[in-house]
Amino acid sequence: MDGPQRIAFIGLGIMGAPMAANLLKAGYQVAVYNRSPGAAERLAALGARPATGVADAVRGADVVITVLPDTPDVEAVFEEILAAGAPGLLHADMSTIDPGASRAMAARAAEDGLRALDAPVSGGEQGAIEGALSIMVGGEAADVAYARPVLEAMGSTVVHVGPSGSGQTVKAANQLLVAGIIELVAEAIVLVEASGVDPEPAVRVLAGGLAGNRILDRKAAGMLARDFTPGFRVDLHHKDLGIVLAAARAAGVTIPLGALAAQLMGALRAQGHGGSDHTALLGQVDRLSGRGRGTS
Amino acid sequence: MDGPQRIAFIGLGIMGAPMAANLLKAGYQVAVYNRSPGAAERLAALGARPATGVADAVRGADVVITVLPDTPDVEAVFEEILAAGAPGLLHADMSTIDPGASRAMAARAAEDGLRALDAPVSGGEQGAIEGALSIMVGGEAADVAYARPVLEAMGSTVVHVGPSGSGQTVKAANQLLVAGIIELVAEAIVLVEASGVDPEPAVRVLAGGLAGNRILDRKAAGMLARDFTPGFRVDLHHKDLGIVLAAARAAGVTIPLGALAAQLMGALRAQGHGGSDHTALLGQVDRLSGRGRGTS
Amino acid sequence: MDGPQRIAFIGLGIMGAPMAANLLKAGYQVAVYNRSPGAAERLAALGARPATGVADAVRGADVVITVLPDTPDVEAVFEEILAAGAPGLLHADMSTIDPGASRAMAARAAEDGLRALDAPVSGGEQGAIEGALSIMVGGEAADVAYARPVLEAMGSTVVHVGPSGSGQTVKAANQLLVAGIIELVAEAIVLVEASGVDPEPAVRVLAGGLAGNRILDRKAAGMLARDFTPGFRVDLHHKDLGIVLAAARAAGVTIPLGALAAQLMGALRAQGHGGSDHTALLGQVDRLSGRGRGTS
Amino acid sequence: MDGPQRIAFIGLGIMGAPMAANLLKAGYQVAVYNRSPGAAERLAALGARPATGVADAVRGADVVITVLPDTPDVEAVFEEILAAGAPGLLHADMSTIDPGASRAMAARAAEDGLRALDAPVSGGEQGAIEGALSIMVGGEAADVAYARPVLEAMGSTVVHVGPSGSGQTVKAANQLLVAGIIELVAEAIVLVEASGVDPEPAVRVLAGGLAGNRILDRKAAGMLARDFTPGFRVDLHHKDLGIVLAAARAAGVTIPLGALAAQLMGALRAQGHGGSDHTALLGQVDRLSGRGRGTS
Repeated sequence: MDGPQRIAFIGLGIMGAPMAANLLKAGYQVAVYNRSPGAAERLAALGARPATGVADAVRGADVVITVLPDTPDVEAVFEEILAAGAPGLLHADMSTIDPGASRAMAARAAEDGLRALDAPVSGGEQGAIEGALSIMVGGEAADVAYARPVLEAMGSTVVHVGPSGSGQTVKAANQLLVAGIIELVAEAIVLVEASGVDPEPAVRVLAGGLAGNRILDRKAAGMLARDFTPGFRVDLHHKDLGIVLAAARAAGVTIPLGALAAQLMGALRAQGHGGSDHTALLGQVDRLSGRGRGTS
Repeated sequence: MDGPQRIAFIGLGIMGAPMAANLLKAGYQVAVYNRSPGAAERLAALGARPATGVADAVRGADVVITVLPDTPDVEAVFEEILAAGAPGLLHADMSTIDPGASRAMAARAAEDGLRALDAPVSGGEQGAIEGALSIMVGGEAADVAYARPVLEAMGSTVVHVGPSGSGQTVKAANQLLVAGIIELVAEAIVLVEASGVDPEPAVRVLAGGLAGNRILDRKAAGMLARDFTPGFRVDLHHKDLGIVLAAARAAGVTIPLGALAAQLMGALRAQGHGGSDHTALLGQVDRLSGRGRGTS
Repeated sequence: MDGPQRIAFIGLGIMGAPMAANLLKAGYQVAVYNRSPGAAERLAALGARPATGVADAVRGADVVITVLPDTPDVEAVFEEILAAGAPGLLHADMSTIDPGASRAMAARAAEDGLRALDAPVSGGEQGAIEGALSIMVGGEAADVAYARPVLEAMGSTVVHVGPSGSGQTVKAANQLLVAGIIELVAEAIVLVEASGVDPEPAVRVLAGGLAGNRILDRKAAGMLARDFTPGFRVDLHHKDLGIVLAAARAAGVTIPLGALAAQLMGALRAQGHGGSDHTALLGQVDRLSGRGRGTS
Repeated sequence: MDGPQRIAFIGLGIMGAPMAANLLKAGYQVAVYNRSPGAAERLAALGARPATGVADAVRGADVVITVLPDTPDVEAVFEEILAAGAPGLLHADMSTIDPGASRAMAARAAEDGLRALDAPVSGGEQGAIEGALSIMVGGEAADVAYARPVLEAMGSTVVHVGPSGSGQTVKAANQLLVAGIIELVAEAIVLVEASGVDPEPAVRVLAGGLAGNRILDRKAAGMLARDFTPGFRVDLHHKDLGIVLAAARAAGVTIPLGALAAQLMGALRAQGHGGSDHTALLGQVDRLSGRGRGTS
């Protein structure tokens, strides 16, 4: 069989750990590495090989996957992959980073005889655990075909959206949409509540019409209860909106609602809500509207 | 049988005409009136009684329905209903108007022994034709129960959201959400396209994740083709956003994204796109971003 | 002499009382009326005739001046002026109201043989006391010429800007500019402070360059001290921004920064800062930025 | 005498050339260098020594001044200054760049025994020609004192605002204010015009009240004429607003109006108006409002 069998998995956080576990469940040989060791030990109990570092993890690997917080983290690990990886190794970066950085790494990988995909994900911790992530993939068609079985072990929707960097561009569009829709849902809910209307039937009827969206479906109950337990943290979404703004600037695209949503997400973070779920935007609309339930 | 049987239907525009037709299909006796007579004649061919005016239409009616463009239109017809209506007549206003005006009319109706519901709809021309509208109803529970079979002949989701005016408040929240989501989808699509990424797979993968929403599902294909044939016109959505802003102001609610979306919708209208579909917001993001495809 | 000599002055609040006092100082005969009587008594001590109502005040007057909080207040008093005023009486409304309402009152005044000017002011309590207001006047040139000496007793800059309603339009533009500049100065000051830079020399050098403006000149010291004693109250500026938005909507003008400033002013009010000076926008930028000095 | 006498001047664009000329007029020995040679020749005619490169220019210099377009330009020249400069050489960077980059260069300069100031300017080409710039200086007090006579040969307001990077922080605040005020003035002017009011008296009376600002004083005449000849180019202001947003992000400050102004400036650039004066924001409000005069 020609498909990939040995996977190196770098980055075992809230998303990475269950994604690696799904690869083990699908029968892949997985070497795991994380800066702090606890997660690697838990995956070892499921059959993973705990590696001593990036170089050790990629030894003999067909595919190396990275799931890391930010662009510089990925760039640092990428240098180690370049140094240690055998020709033909495919690097699938599933972090959310700057599209330009993805393109640059792919170009350098090609010079060294390696292959690279950007394959960021949407769907949150629940999607990672259930293997039901949406994965937006940028890179060469042949490389996507090669990696597809691996990606499908982690996600239910795997779409090749274009050349290197395209996956990250679409992820940026995703983060713009999600932040903006959360803020709009927050404004709509507070408008309904402050007008003296019970928000529960309101949310039900809104979800059934043209305004319907997945934030209303999945997050409105928590929002109505002002339960902002993450989920996806304000800090990370704020970081992603920095990528969105830079991508829009690079492409010459005007995103007034996106830019304003980024300011409001930044305000949450500055006020110490960086560790709350991004739906904490609702608490901020509460506070701006002088309503008392806005504490997370 | 105690339920309503004779309906007066005032306002036979793009929405009203197919709604009245669905009442006829459901077996109700329907008297119709419209300022310009063509639509009434077409409904007469389906079995409606063409009335000579509001007073004539409501003669003997159990329920009078209004589907009119704006608050002053409804207020003017309401005066005629008050003058001509028999005690117990139920007025269901299915227009989109100011919640405060709905409350005021309901109070006056009660003084005169009439009953009133505000029952605005979401779902567009297609929903009106298919009898699949979402209907958000404000008023007394007993009156909602009385009118429910009539409303269910026009809509698939009929939710009693609270006392008089509540239906309009939830409709305002709906219009805020729809305008904002269209603008966000427009910003996301132009970001993807201007970054050199094919938007079709991008839209597909976005629709599958947390960013998923009904605008992406129903409107993205038309948006990608820059086909802004209405559908729901910019002029009407702009009018509705005026109601949204007034409702937010009255309730003391801060809606920064909603206010900005209202400005952008108003800009479309000022530029002569008032007759285009509200998804023409995409053409405006195109123009602001210096891209050539933005003509409707 | 043909010029006006007898003035009726309706509305003796923070602005109206010192304006009436300046008319007395200039030698005019002034009849004063205010709903609550204290201010009229104080002006009587300066030589004014306390009137028992609007009709009594305008008896024998050449000019009647109104300085009232909002459009409906002016419209109510205007009805009394129409009923009681002799032909030729000139009504100068110096309140800040909707330009369309001004135009409508001027048209009705003309039908009844009265004359009307809209003559709103800028310059605050200090300008009112010093007789140094900026007065933007809309109406017929002959009427402006007739009233000019009266207006110049209250203001140092009296400019005829156009036909009826024009004064209010320019006042709306003024209120848009002032709110927006205060918010921008607030953002700039917090940016400087949060970056660890002493804001006092910063404000000095900013005031000397292209960014220089009267808010920096007159208000920055109070802002740096977080002293939000009014001055001009958030409540009133919020009311005025409602007029601005309605005027922009009526004229088809897109004002994104104005609309966002209006939301931020409304947020201040909703949070209970309606009685603070409008520079309390700085406290809100503090709070949104997680900084501790934002309490007024 | 202990003060600086020999100056190296790198960057002879629209601002740099007249600034260097003023140093010559004040009696300093000035070595000049510019990537393209024409400007250096013109300054040679005024007594400057044309240098063959950065290293040649700084040979024997007491102070080296840089006036360059963007952060990377300054960083590249700074490396050459570090390599060629004698101990004690003071580098005054008068470009507008990222405050963090200024701080980093100052730290490296100190390690190598050099001194560094950030000293960006406000006042435009006219201020540069007249020696009337506002100069906001960050760095050590002793270094500011040493360089002050040199700076005062170019500017009428020289304020030491704090440690390294502070000058750039205050310049960022300046650029935020200027962009925002231009947009607000544009919104106010179009509101007045579209309401049928003559903008010339309106601008006059606005300039006299609390809304008064230097954009109204210096730029309104050109704006009313839709003359967008630079002046300060949209491209450069857009670059500067990128610095503003990054500085605000780094400091955790929420700047909603600033962020929206940045989007609007970016839209101008994307539409091909990058070479117009930044007051071309008025043309954009015209276009968004469907008015015909908005072409530059």
